[in-house]
Amino acid sequence: MNFQDPQDTICALSTAEGVGAISLIRLSGNQSVPIISQIFSKSLKDKNSHSAHYGIIKKGQEIIDEVVVTYFKGPNSFTGEDIIEIACHGSRFIQEEILSLLISKGARLAGPGEFSLRAFLNKKMDLSQAEAIADLIASNTAAAHKVAMNQMRGGYSTEISELRQELMNFASLIELELDFSEEDVEFAERSALEDLLKVIREKLVSLVSSFKYGNVIKNGVPVAIVGAPNAGKSTLLNNLLNEDKAIVSDIAGTTRDAIEDTIVLDGIEFRFIDTAGIRETVDAIETQGIQKAFEKIKSAHLVLLLFDLAGETEQEVLKQIENFRKKRITEGQELICLFNKSDQIKASDFKKLKDVGFFISAKTGDNVQDLKDLLVATVKKNESASENVVTNFRHYSILSACLLSIDKIKEALDYQISGDLMAMDIRETLDLLGSITGEISSDDLLGNIFSKFCIGK
Amino acid sequence: MNFQDPQDTICALSTAEGVGAISLIRLSGNQSVPIISQIFSKSLKDKNSHSAHYGIIKKGQEIIDEVVVTYFKGPNSFTGEDIIEIACHGSRFIQEEILSLLISKGARLAGPGEFSLRAFLNKKMDLSQAEAIADLIASNTAAAHKVAMNQMRGGYSTEISELRQELMNFASLIELELDFSEEDVEFAERSALEDLLKVIREKLVSLVSSFKYGNVIKNGVPVAIVGAPNAGKSTLLNNLLNEDKAIVSDIAGTTRDAIEDTIVLDGIEFRFIDTAGIRETVDAIETQGIQKAFEKIKSAHLVLLLFDLAGETEQEVLKQIENFRKKRITEGQELICLFNKSDQIKASDFKKLKDVGFFISAKTGDNVQDLKDLLVATVKKNESASENVVTNFRHYSILSACLLSIDKIKEALDYQISGDLMAMDIRETLDLLGSITGEISSDDLLGNIFSKFCIGK
Repeated sequence: MNFQDPQDTICALSTAEGVGAISLIRLSGNQSVPIISQIFSKSLKDKNSHSAHYGIIKKGQEIIDEVVVTYFKGPNSFTGEDIIEIACHGSRFIQEEILSLLISKGARLAGPGEFSLRAFLNKKMDLSQAEAIADLIASNTAAAHKVAMNQMRGGYSTEISELRQELMNFASLIELELDFSEEDVEFAERSALEDLLKVIREKLVSLVSSFKYGNVIKNGVPVAIVGAPNAGKSTLLNNLLNEDKAIVSDIAGTTRDAIEDTIVLDGIEFRFIDTAGIRETVDAIETQGIQKAFEKIKSAHLVLLLFDLAGETEQEVLKQIENFRKKRITEGQELICLFNKSDQIKASDFKKLKDVGFFISAKTGDNVQDLKDLLVATVKKNESASENVVTNFRHYSILSACLLSIDKIKEALDYQISGDLMAMDIRETLDLLGSITGEISSDDLLGNIFSKFCIGK
Repeated sequence: MNFQDPQDTICALSTAEGVGAISLIRLSGNQSVPIISQIFSKSLKDKNSHSAHYGIIKKGQEIIDEVVVTYFKGPNSFTGEDIIEIACHGSRFIQEEILSLLISKGARLAGPGEFSLRAFLNKKMDLSQAEAIADLIASNTAAAHKVAMNQMRGGYSTEISELRQELMNFASLIELELDFSEEDVEFAERSALEDLLKVIREKLVSLVSSFKYGNVIKNGVPVAIVGAPNAGKSTLLNNLLNEDKAIVSDIAGTTRDAIEDTIVLDGIEFRFIDTAGIRETVDAIETQGIQKAFEKIKSAHLVLLLFDLAGETEQEVLKQIENFRKKRITEGQELICLFNKSDQIKASDFKKLKDVGFFISAKTGDNVQDLKDLLVATVKKNESASENVVTNFRHYSILSACLLSIDKIKEALDYQISGDLMAMDIRETLDLLGSITGEISSDDLLGNIFSKFCIGK
């Protein structure tokens, strides 16, 4: 992405595409006021910031619309520049006419995320905050919303910036030592550096490990239900889904996209993986040669292994569980064993199973609520103690690389490696940390991030 | 539709459904300010009307969003009531959370068109203006936009109101005569009434006849292309469509709905009727028993009858045209004869055809631009001299009924029918005229009109 001139005044439709009662068109840049003045019936000259004005947009003598124009004077605005917001009637024709008019008067159409990019360039927010805006808009559950909002309002940015600043002070001292290398002075106290590295490392470990939770919060928790054909998988799935479909909020009068096999429990989204292939396989757990169907299970975060205890012995079930755990469960996956048709068995015959799983009746709904609580609890046990959760894969990658980089500095300290090599390692860490908040950034990086935004944001 | 309490404070999402950078939620009613004050971080007390305020929406301790709240103090607002507009981040989760919060604090979700209904009830606009808002939002061509905008800004409302007022004065005088009926006085001068009726009639005729233009402007002009299998119908259609598809504006970065077989010429939309059934019929014009396929042509406003002159004689073509016009063209339809493959014939053999049609070459595009101009001209010849065009079928029906009603009054005058009967006829006209602007309205009528609006308008 080549950056277009940040001196341009940009415009875009900022509300959702399509027809609505009202649409919002946004104009940002130092020519916002002169441009709007050419087509709006009222003068904004000498008007206060944050004031709204009812009037008419004209194209020559033709009235395009009756609108409300709101004026936000920079730097006290989202982008830090003069912003004009035009609330017009929400027809596509009017949207396009007004945008055409703005362009004819000297504005240009904004690129994806260009308003947010300007907010970043004008230091209204750091890079990770700008990234959180996109997450916030995309979030559709309470948990995803919460972590995005926390990040948008600062999140771990400040902490990272502060630690980075401290590390930078050390870097300066060590680099100073290099200038005086013949004199064998030590400006940077090694033990203090070691303490700082420890603090940074702890912080990084906490953030990196929060990604396991953050990622499923953001993208939903993939869940697979596995079991022999008559174990009751469909009944269980329907039982889980149906109850919740009624709760799906319809308050905005909007039709949600068809939500298939997805439930939201306690603000967390669970996505049930289509395991139709496995369902069709007779005695899936024991049969060989169904590797392909089981591939799908690999993408699951939670695996629910369902048994129908009728006709099974405790010993046999325990063997199957052990077998399944060994063959199918990979690192990072959680296995939850469910013993179905609890209403039809003699509990005393299956005493040992209590320790390895969970009795339910998918049909009567017995214990299904407890299962839901368990699903939530299984995810939440990864919830970090701190409010700061990493949900952004870019941040996760950088933080992971930082950890390695920090360890290299520590190694350099331990082995008393020469200052110039250590200085390089510290620089690497500084650059990595700085690229999270955007203190270090390149056009490529920014282009890559903001091009994924929608136009108008 | 039962009207919900107009004293309630109502809220709704006013921008298009779905996810966007920004969404706008609107709140109207006397509790708008107290309600927003409970969830917004800044107090709006003592704030000026038309002022925008940046702050935070909270649900208890939880931050729902950073928003801009704009305050419009009634009666200086769209509805005439206190309005609060909340510009929030455009995720569905946030939209729903904020609406839920507003409802929990005492607002209720607005019904379809309820903001516009309130604007009408609070005399911010008359009924025909409110109806024009819906047309304005739905309009997607310059011509449709222009008539909707004209109507929204007053249109023929004022004129109709004034004529109605004059007629009402006569009605009062005539009803006064009835009170003095034994004394044989005449308060209402009959010749003046006759003059007024003439003025009203002229106005009504002008408006009723404008509907022919207004209706096609609003809904698009249905066009059928008819001709024998090799006449070149598909080539002509492609030639008309392809050129224009490139012109379809994509300036807002939005994907338009698939526009099939539709072109916009000079701001007017032409919709080509699928005449596939006819296309498949061999020598459609001469063959009997294809009535069903021809039924479709009946819905066309313009019929393009296409001939391939190769192998035809002038005489034969003229006969076919005459035959087609007689059998297929109904009142109100326009027939345009097109002689295709103009590049392959000897013009001197078809001299007479010049008077009855139009030579083109669908393949080379010869004269196709002229054909487009002709299409536009054919529609525009119905354009009324006045700016006021009736596009609303409800208005058209009422105005047509008014005409009959006016004629009854005139008849009563001519035959010197007794005042009480004439008074009844005048009342009928008054009620009809009043129901256009809403001076006369019922809950049923209003419910019927506003329930077709979208929620949020």
